[in-house]
Amino acid sequence: MPRTDIRSFNIDFFTIITNIPDMAQQNAISPTRAENFPEWYQQVIKAADMAENSEVRGCMVIKPWGYAIWELIQQQMDAEFKRTGHTNAYFPMLIPVSYLEKEAEHAEGFATECAVVTHHRLEAVKDPETGKTRMIPAGELTDKYVIRPTSETVIGAAFSRWLESYRELPIKVNQWCNVMRWEMRPRIFLRTAEFLWQEGHTAHETREEAEEETAVMHKVYEDFQRDVLAVPSIPGEKTEHERFPGAVRTFTVEAMVQDRKAIQAGTSHFLGQNFAKAQNISFAGRNNERQYAWTTSWGVSTRMIGTLIMAHSDDDGLVCPPRVAPRQVVIIPVTPKADSREAILAHCEELAARLSAQSFHGLPIRVQVDTRDINGGMKKWEWIKKGVPVRVEIGPRDLEKGSVCVCRRDKATNEKSFIAESEFAEGIVSLLQEIQDSLLQRQLNFRDSHIRPCDNLEAFKANFAGEGDADWLLCPWDGTPEEEEELAKSLRISIRCIPHGEMGTGPEAPCILTGRPTTRRVLWARSY
Amino acid sequence: MPRTDIRSFNIDFFTIITNIPDMAQQNAISPTRAENFPEWYQQVIKAADMAENSEVRGCMVIKPWGYAIWELIQQQMDAEFKRTGHTNAYFPMLIPVSYLEKEAEHAEGFATECAVVTHHRLEAVKDPETGKTRMIPAGELTDKYVIRPTSETVIGAAFSRWLESYRELPIKVNQWCNVMRWEMRPRIFLRTAEFLWQEGHTAHETREEAEEETAVMHKVYEDFQRDVLAVPSIPGEKTEHERFPGAVRTFTVEAMVQDRKAIQAGTSHFLGQNFAKAQNISFAGRNNERQYAWTTSWGVSTRMIGTLIMAHSDDDGLVCPPRVAPRQVVIIPVTPKADSREAILAHCEELAARLSAQSFHGLPIRVQVDTRDINGGMKKWEWIKKGVPVRVEIGPRDLEKGSVCVCRRDKATNEKSFIAESEFAEGIVSLLQEIQDSLLQRQLNFRDSHIRPCDNLEAFKANFAGEGDADWLLCPWDGTPEEEEELAKSLRISIRCIPHGEMGTGPEAPCILTGRPTTRRVLWARSY
Repeated sequence: MPRTDIRSFNIDFFTIITNIPDMAQQNAISPTRAENFPEWYQQVIKAADMAENSEVRGCMVIKPWGYAIWELIQQQMDAEFKRTGHTNAYFPMLIPVSYLEKEAEHAEGFATECAVVTHHRLEAVKDPETGKTRMIPAGELTDKYVIRPTSETVIGAAFSRWLESYRELPIKVNQWCNVMRWEMRPRIFLRTAEFLWQEGHTAHETREEAEEETAVMHKVYEDFQRDVLAVPSIPGEKTEHERFPGAVRTFTVEAMVQDRKAIQAGTSHFLGQNFAKAQNISFAGRNNERQYAWTTSWGVSTRMIGTLIMAHSDDDGLVCPPRVAPRQVVIIPVTPKADSREAILAHCEELAARLSAQSFHGLPIRVQVDTRDINGGMKKWEWIKKGVPVRVEIGPRDLEKGSVCVCRRDKATNEKSFIAESEFAEGIVSLLQEIQDSLLQRQLNFRDSHIRPCDNLEAFKANFAGEGDADWLLCPWDGTPEEEEELAKSLRISIRCIPHGEMGTGPEAPCILTGRPTTRRVLWARSY
Repeated sequence: MPRTDIRSFNIDFFTIITNIPDMAQQNAISPTRAENFPEWYQQVIKAADMAENSEVRGCMVIKPWGYAIWELIQQQMDAEFKRTGHTNAYFPMLIPVSYLEKEAEHAEGFATECAVVTHHRLEAVKDPETGKTRMIPAGELTDKYVIRPTSETVIGAAFSRWLESYRELPIKVNQWCNVMRWEMRPRIFLRTAEFLWQEGHTAHETREEAEEETAVMHKVYEDFQRDVLAVPSIPGEKTEHERFPGAVRTFTVEAMVQDRKAIQAGTSHFLGQNFAKAQNISFAGRNNERQYAWTTSWGVSTRMIGTLIMAHSDDDGLVCPPRVAPRQVVIIPVTPKADSREAILAHCEELAARLSAQSFHGLPIRVQVDTRDINGGMKKWEWIKKGVPVRVEIGPRDLEKGSVCVCRRDKATNEKSFIAESEFAEGIVSLLQEIQDSLLQRQLNFRDSHIRPCDNLEAFKANFAGEGDADWLLCPWDGTPEEEEELAKSLRISIRCIPHGEMGTGPEAPCILTGRPTTRRVLWARSY
């Protein structure tokens, strides 16, 4: 079905011209999701001008449209951190290698992907052959550093300095920063050498308090994904094999995207006293005896942007949930005649002012009037590809009638409604929430139709055979970490989690691999 | 004069106890500014719990109170960037050494202080003597990287990829990030190996537009320092000798702190076509011919926090201008008797709600009721040392009378006023602005009384002799960069700027060093 805007034919000659390619092409993004999902993903990012790969190995440039989404995520998530009693702080990005050596399991987990700083200056040398000046590392450091892959060690060292008495507990800090893990197969937003994230770190007097903190932040992540990103997730616990290096327990929220792969969208770790003992995070307790603190850590990253792209977008480009859309409404003035141009532009600005005076979830509604001197078809398709939730067109006839033409990004591209302008302006908050809810509902339906119980190893293997999309399977599981790794490797899958609540347990049944009876259920899936 | 709170004697036994040490000590910070300014600075930071040195060479930990100030700076400055048409983005923190090599002057400027990444993993090796496992760098990189000391090169490379036609100009982006310069003599906030900053980078079609951008951002910095940090500064241009490596012109705002040293509080660079030519930032112009863009860059950093500490604080600790105070009002319930305790606490919370429902410069007023179970004297001194602009005490008699006891941080510690609560609540916005204005006025008076014209080399040398505080001298100047460097080195001073406007020029007079006639005036000072 051609995506041409029929109405434009009547009013804008240039629109006709530029829409002709769309008629032939059908969709703004090529290839489509069905044709080649990974390549479609790259093309959506490019078409929305969100980010790009750089010449720096594995590192991306986050362009303004992508970064604006990150700012909205930060702003709304930071409010949740503060509501739950955390304050922000900032810790050094360089970690002495000796810090890493203190917690063996942790060090091992990150050693293979660390950027190592070994020198502190460059020296100019003339290449005798080419005559060109080259800069080479000089000033070798006795103590080497890594760029933080995560900050448990450097923040633990600070906690160790700060902490004297139980009266100073809990310590609950968070930092927004960049981290670096030398990824061998980078994929923009989802897996890059450098990425942006937040990492919360807390220390508590008792095990119970630390466990409670881990659970609270796990819930914050689940709620945020659902309510702000419109991405439902399965909350659960990681198996021993998938745990964060150094953690006692790791909790995760797992999102399903449109190719049915899983994305770990946030993790919360109960670290027990492992880091406290390795780093001497200790305090004088109520009984006046020295004791170790109980610590936690939790984080989400720019990977969330990859999740939201893969969850919602379609073959015309990005679909952005209203709560994180850099622009929630774009108003396009349609000005075929010079004599009505000024009046239409002024009218559009008035409407924009009326909308942006209203708030949606505590933030002023983000509106742009697209006054650029390019044709209407180009404008329209640009905003479709950028995922703007609501597009409004106002032309001479709308002005006469007091109506506006409204298109929703969550509906078909050629679906439009003409409604009274005052009705539109008064209903904008409900409209945005309706779009937010419809995106969530669509994702919920999709997810629930692609998670199935499975207790048969043959059916299990058939589901995960080949490279194609595969459902998530909920299976009785009693395997060892070694058995888990073997099965995972053979099918390029993993246990995403032991789901919380009813989903994670069931009547005694034979483990799908070992046959040993178990009440535990785990979710197997292919993942990013 | 003892800093004891007379009123507390009547109502709070514990206050008497804890205030006795204050009576002996006179001031909360030791040493005082007069005794040892650099050490006083460190002690103010410690007493306010703003930041600390870490075990990572030259890198600080910014603690919650210090980071909250940075967040307020970011939030309010970011609004200015957006108002002036900039958007945020994010670029890789690693810069290939080959990028640096392209602009020789720039490379040379930063080569001596770069953290160099040479390896991408660590390998565990067992020390044969101790039997302990150590981690050593492995996976040497063919192409080495430096951690960004500034991002002209990596952002220039992106501009070069993005730019095709004059229609895409101007490009105006900013990033908030960390940077690293291997400082040999770090000083917390003012000069650290890693620091946080923002760096704006823009590309323009014409020289005039780029010059205009440089001027606009220079003005944004000047206004921000004055209106938000209550720090007046002298805006002007750097001499060739003090210019940013690779820039055609560098503009600066120079602040004077209480030991009369200068702090460069923000710079804006007109880069001409230097980086554009080195990195091929070019576009098809209106005449369809390929031409180079004109670029600018501009930045401020966490150093601003050091400036505000040194500008406003006193011998009792931090004095924080209301616009960047993490708490603008702290309410301390005075509850000597159990039977009135609940009523007083409830009343304090009501007042807090009434205050925080109001806005000061567009942000809700930040209020805290200090309900901690520690004595009133300790609370009071903690908030004094943290620089909170307004402290309010409410006890049983205040409750009866409907009054509050108000102390301002910009007044003497024992100065207090009793005013009707409703009057206080209704006047809070004016009170905060009054404090903000009084801090600025105090700084203006101080600065203006310590800048003097000087046209005599003997008087000049006498002013800058020794290690003590020295006035800023405005001098006729026509020296070469070499002459400037020699004079600067001999007295450990520098030309801070050629001031804008009338200050930077005057009737023809002999240069203070060379005697050559000149109309130019420059400001010489000792600086951080």
